[in-house]
Amino acid sequence: MKSHTTYLTYKIKERMEFRNITQDVAKCLQESGVQEGLCLVNAMHITASVFINDDERGLHQDYKRWLEWLAPYDPSPERYHHNRTGEDNGDAHHKRQVMGREVVVAVTKGKLDFGPWEQIFYGEFDGRRDKRVLVKIIGE
Amino acid sequence: MKSHTTYLTYKIKERMEFRNITQDVAKCLQESGVQEGLCLVNAMHITASVFINDDERGLHQDYKRWLEWLAPYDPSPERYHHNRTGEDNGDAHHKRQVMGREVVVAVTKGKLDFGPWEQIFYGEFDGRRDKRVLVKIIGE
Amino acid sequence: MKSHTTYLTYKIKERMEFRNITQDVAKCLQESGVQEGLCLVNAMHITASVFINDDERGLHQDYKRWLEWLAPYDPSPERYHHNRTGEDNGDAHHKRQVMGREVVVAVTKGKLDFGPWEQIFYGEFDGRRDKRVLVKIIGE
Repeated sequence: MKSHTTYLTYKIKERMEFRNITQDVAKCLQESGVQEGLCLVNAMHITASVFINDDERGLHQDYKRWLEWLAPYDPSPERYHHNRTGEDNGDAHHKRQVMGREVVVAVTKGKLDFGPWEQIFYGEFDGRRDKRVLVKIIGE
Repeated sequence: MKSHTTYLTYKIKERMEFRNITQDVAKCLQESGVQEGLCLVNAMHITASVFINDDERGLHQDYKRWLEWLAPYDPSPERYHHNRTGEDNGDAHHKRQVMGREVVVAVTKGKLDFGPWEQIFYGEFDGRRDKRVLVKIIGE
Repeated sequence: MKSHTTYLTYKIKERMEFRNITQDVAKCLQESGVQEGLCLVNAMHITASVFINDDERGLHQDYKRWLEWLAPYDPSPERYHHNRTGEDNGDAHHKRQVMGREVVVAVTKGKLDFGPWEQIFYGEFDGRRDKRVLVKIIGE
């Protein structure tokens, strides 16, 4: 069994934004030499997500508006008890739960085994600093 | 290490529906011959889900009503920017995020290692055409 | 390839509560002897979650309030069709979908490969009885 570990770093200048990281993950897979196996991609920070969906700008606007409805940004300590710690990112911990921490992707014949529109995104909900994404590939 | 890949195809005649695919996945596992390992089951389309929950008709009605509250179907381009592309499925991309893309199931002694009520469902949010589910099993 | 399976049991006295199970999972990993691989941790019950986030009491209060807004506890058969079966836990099946069933964690150099604040939680939404969590580790 082979295993291959990569830490990718992203710095998003907006508070909330989605970045297509499919090519970065595909490069990790190529370096791994794995032909058949599983590829885990996860945010290493708890105010960020990794998810798979469509690379369509309008949809990303929709997601932002929807997540803001589900868990509005509010730095005050009234809405989010979490912000009583001095943080202002209570909302981001909620948004991340909706969008998820990780994806597991099948590796088949040396490729990410994707449907026609699947793309991997890093979702940032408390940006403006370096954050890491882990890519772990195991297989043969 | 063994690996086994299957593409299952489902065509759901309703726009939104849940189908129990546990037996289909169990059959893939049997074909794989894997005794100990992991089984990934994921939707290959971004307006569909694979999730694990209860096979209870009332619960599925509840999920539909709840998802419709969280992200109502609305083909107009006002509610969902995504629908300005000519699509009418903006809602489906949101519903899929709530229910999730994939499950990873432990394989123990040649079986899906499930609790008493766990069943695997394909969740369709933009139906009426063929959609694929990937089953990838690795182990020994 | 090595594989290692553990069933952890938790009994939470509240209806809804989050318990940090990171050390229990780390102990499973140590017992497995796996240095490089993947570690699946999943709830075996469909009214419970396993998720990764922050071990901060205020955030957990926020999650409870938020999940109660998203899917209120209501034993009546009006809000949740599921409760017509005699159950009173329709809400718990919804809360679990938001928080997720499982996490997959990379194993690197014999450790759970975590970012600075990642902690694994068992999330209970229909407590007061024994529930199981499965830990499956594969690798070398």
